[in-house]
Amino acid sequence: MVRRLVPRWPVWLLPWRAACTPGAFVQQRTWAGATRTPSWGRLHGVAGVSPLVRTGSSSTSSQAPEVVLTCERYPVRRLPFSTVSEEDLATFERIIPRRVITDPEELEASNVDWLRTMRGCSKVLLKPRTSEEVSHILRYCHERNLAVNTQGGNTGLVGGSVPVFDEIILSTALMNQVVSFQDISGILVCQAGCILEELSQYVEERDFIMPLDLGAKGSCHIGGNLATNAGGLRFLRYGSLRGTVLGLEVVLADGTVLNCLTSLRKDNTGYDLKQLFIGSEGTLGVITAVSILCPPKPRAVNVAFLGCPGFAEVLQTFSTCKRMLGEILSAYEFMDAECMQLVRHHLHLTSPVQESQFYVLVETSGSRVEHDAEKLSSFLEHALASGLVTDGTLATDQGKIKMLWALRERITEALTRDGYVYKYDISLPVDRLYDLVTDLRARLGPQAKHVVGYGHLGDGNLHLNVTAEAFSPSLLGDLEPYVYEWTAGQRGSVSAEHGVGFKKQSVLGYSKPPEALRLMQQLKTLLDPKGILNPYKTLPTRA
Amino acid sequence: MVRRLVPRWPVWLLPWRAACTPGAFVQQRTWAGATRTPSWGRLHGVAGVSPLVRTGSSSTSSQAPEVVLTCERYPVRRLPFSTVSEEDLATFERIIPRRVITDPEELEASNVDWLRTMRGCSKVLLKPRTSEEVSHILRYCHERNLAVNTQGGNTGLVGGSVPVFDEIILSTALMNQVVSFQDISGILVCQAGCILEELSQYVEERDFIMPLDLGAKGSCHIGGNLATNAGGLRFLRYGSLRGTVLGLEVVLADGTVLNCLTSLRKDNTGYDLKQLFIGSEGTLGVITAVSILCPPKPRAVNVAFLGCPGFAEVLQTFSTCKRMLGEILSAYEFMDAECMQLVRHHLHLTSPVQESQFYVLVETSGSRVEHDAEKLSSFLEHALASGLVTDGTLATDQGKIKMLWALRERITEALTRDGYVYKYDISLPVDRLYDLVTDLRARLGPQAKHVVGYGHLGDGNLHLNVTAEAFSPSLLGDLEPYVYEWTAGQRGSVSAEHGVGFKKQSVLGYSKPPEALRLMQQLKTLLDPKGILNPYKTLPTRA
Repeated sequence: MVRRLVPRWPVWLLPWRAACTPGAFVQQRTWAGATRTPSWGRLHGVAGVSPLVRTGSSSTSSQAPEVVLTCERYPVRRLPFSTVSEEDLATFERIIPRRVITDPEELEASNVDWLRTMRGCSKVLLKPRTSEEVSHILRYCHERNLAVNTQGGNTGLVGGSVPVFDEIILSTALMNQVVSFQDISGILVCQAGCILEELSQYVEERDFIMPLDLGAKGSCHIGGNLATNAGGLRFLRYGSLRGTVLGLEVVLADGTVLNCLTSLRKDNTGYDLKQLFIGSEGTLGVITAVSILCPPKPRAVNVAFLGCPGFAEVLQTFSTCKRMLGEILSAYEFMDAECMQLVRHHLHLTSPVQESQFYVLVETSGSRVEHDAEKLSSFLEHALASGLVTDGTLATDQGKIKMLWALRERITEALTRDGYVYKYDISLPVDRLYDLVTDLRARLGPQAKHVVGYGHLGDGNLHLNVTAEAFSPSLLGDLEPYVYEWTAGQRGSVSAEHGVGFKKQSVLGYSKPPEALRLMQQLKTLLDPKGILNPYKTLPTRA
Repeated sequence: MVRRLVPRWPVWLLPWRAACTPGAFVQQRTWAGATRTPSWGRLHGVAGVSPLVRTGSSSTSSQAPEVVLTCERYPVRRLPFSTVSEEDLATFERIIPRRVITDPEELEASNVDWLRTMRGCSKVLLKPRTSEEVSHILRYCHERNLAVNTQGGNTGLVGGSVPVFDEIILSTALMNQVVSFQDISGILVCQAGCILEELSQYVEERDFIMPLDLGAKGSCHIGGNLATNAGGLRFLRYGSLRGTVLGLEVVLADGTVLNCLTSLRKDNTGYDLKQLFIGSEGTLGVITAVSILCPPKPRAVNVAFLGCPGFAEVLQTFSTCKRMLGEILSAYEFMDAECMQLVRHHLHLTSPVQESQFYVLVETSGSRVEHDAEKLSSFLEHALASGLVTDGTLATDQGKIKMLWALRERITEALTRDGYVYKYDISLPVDRLYDLVTDLRARLGPQAKHVVGYGHLGDGNLHLNVTAEAFSPSLLGDLEPYVYEWTAGQRGSVSAEHGVGFKKQSVLGYSKPPEALRLMQQLKTLLDPKGILNPYKTLPTRA
């Protein structure tokens, strides 16, 4: 069953337009400080979402092209919010002296998203340090009917973190203090603007780890992680933020400070209000502080890289892993043979195992080195003997572990070097996960250079990618809505971990029934009656 | 800081009244089928909440006393809902033929709560089998302004599961079908009325376990577990239902079926609506089906029982456990010396370790017997050598494991035999957990027979119990609001895992700020504008 609740339009048919800002930002950005290989390659337009910049098939050019204004590219109309006046700026200056940014060059980096596919034209960036300052700002904006776009590290992939028009950018960058850490329970309380990697270092010094890890950890803010409900690399083991986040402090649209910043594992005193704000992408309130449960740091990490003869064996190997590795299993990632071809061809990486139809990366994290190694060895012996796995290798030292992870993590980089990439981030029932890739390969035929599937199999999360020599409207027409309809047919999710933001509003109806969308809208109206918080995002409001 | 948002009244000053129903239900009930020793002892009134029945100091009498009507006992007024008419009954009979129960004897068991401290006077019990039937019923009740009390296994401890006046009882008892189970991912989809123990058996046959376990598992319904946001014995290891529940089907007050019954580990397509209903005790909607992630069944379970010289050592032992046992730690329970005296004196259980100030029960669940045993042995050696633990014993066989668990689980039974019991279920920062017991012991002096503390230390969950020869208003006056104020001073929770229900509305303000209570009320108004769903519960509405 396919639901179409909101009008959708063929974005690829809209004409290209030049950005309205002369001298538009062309500097190439990276996820600063990320220790893992950035998994998103070069910063050109990513299709499937919206091809906003013209790129050749090579992504090795030293200068990224200009980014078109979102309001010129998409059929979106500015809502009747007030425009920021000199008097408004003076008021903000009184609330947060010397932290009201209006310099166009400084604003540029906050107006353009990380993927360089969206550009807003905000004229002011505010940098509060406390929730009280956020409260004053929002109370004022609410009274004045000024729209506000909250921004963390600006590493989002669906256009949720940048303004669409001239929304005021409210940055959490200076709200970067750790409030407390409990050594016994591992409960961390911090402000929303703390960078994930810095928090990781902070808790690792105390023999704990953060319950989430992302490629963007060098830039992303914990508040943004929560607003996105980020998944990431530790999801299989430590679960969703909905379980590990214990409390939040949130400032509501009218400036009310909602303090639910408890540090308790159990609290059944009424509705769990913090859940409203996790994953709501700044549309219901501004997260200003976080209480989160950190697991103890594992003593041993091991990685096995395996070749499987078919997807059925990939699934059976997963079941076997869960049985034999049990509590130490911390990642189960898969990639198909075409992925391996691409990393070999474009990045000159070599497979450590013999050629196979599928490859699996298994990571364990445990508290006792020799026990974990024994478990992994037993599992590998069993998997080989039973024919589930045709070849495999086991890494216990950091160098080889990184090398094996690189095969999986650098697939996106290899894809961007292969040509124009159509990208989808889909959740599916795990036993149907690869059928979409197979079906699509048959459907597209020689139109596509490669149709590849890889991802977090352990979480049912497929990264489906299609490459072609260049962007093609007809290929996109064969991809969409087919991919979304196929996903809806399996009751899958059209956004597994990246969120809705600005870019996926139009396809939300494939994963949510009308009653859910209506209730979402009612919640938005209840919490933000003027709609000033991150407008044009999350909810299907575009005409 | 102590917040008082709602009027509270000294319930112990209200006069005793006889139940209005002649021949009131006196049969003693148990949590049917529970395989663990029932941890709530005899079914007399439990204080701290509300002493509703007169009991002597002995709980061995064969007949439980009558239960007073809630509306006679508490200062609560019936809201202006319609009264069920013959025409209403005829309509229900058309919707669910032969499943409209009006026989007073059959109704009795559903009008009285498990603790036998509350009694409603509902005249009709409905037993739908499908969500469509629930939808028809609620649409009709909404139109007719008839109040509805949803009831699962009726094992709740705060009066949330029984009517206060004549609310229609909507039982989930016949909604007891498993819909699907995915062998690879361990995702179970079932109707809300499935009994937890039956689900456990179902998934254990498939080599998985339910992520929650409770003393009441023989009777409680999975829908009720979710409505309560039950904690239980596996919380430390498998976390909150907020992380393990993947989807819900809910019928809203007006009969709208909200289908969020996805079976996906990751789904970031908008607000996570199901979270609204988890822990909302049937006040926002009726949960009709559940999708839940089941962990693989552990291959090995071990238990260590330890003596610690002080509470500081209990805490340090917990930290050591987390380090040395890591991923296999599945329970960390504590009890004080007075608890051990009580189980010894009243139940003739003997301590397997030498006399200590505190006792700790450590459980491990893992995938490899010999590894787990080795880890536990190493830990125990270290704990003994470092003086954290003065004595300890390790059990690997089922018989001894059960015997060790009995020491912890039968404390409540021992308490009920000690006299009148004042019970509190509190969450606190783990390092302050026992200070409340110590403070209270000093405060009460010889007024109390025993002031004991035990509970799920790993979850920061204290069960604080005070015994006395008989119920005493002055003792209760020394306990309340002191216990709640003390808890609020630590930003603790006045209900860790039992919920709010009817009994804890009046103390909600100790754990929730006014802004949160206001937003809770707004959500209630949004989702149930006529207030027909489980009225008089969860929100502080009593005058």
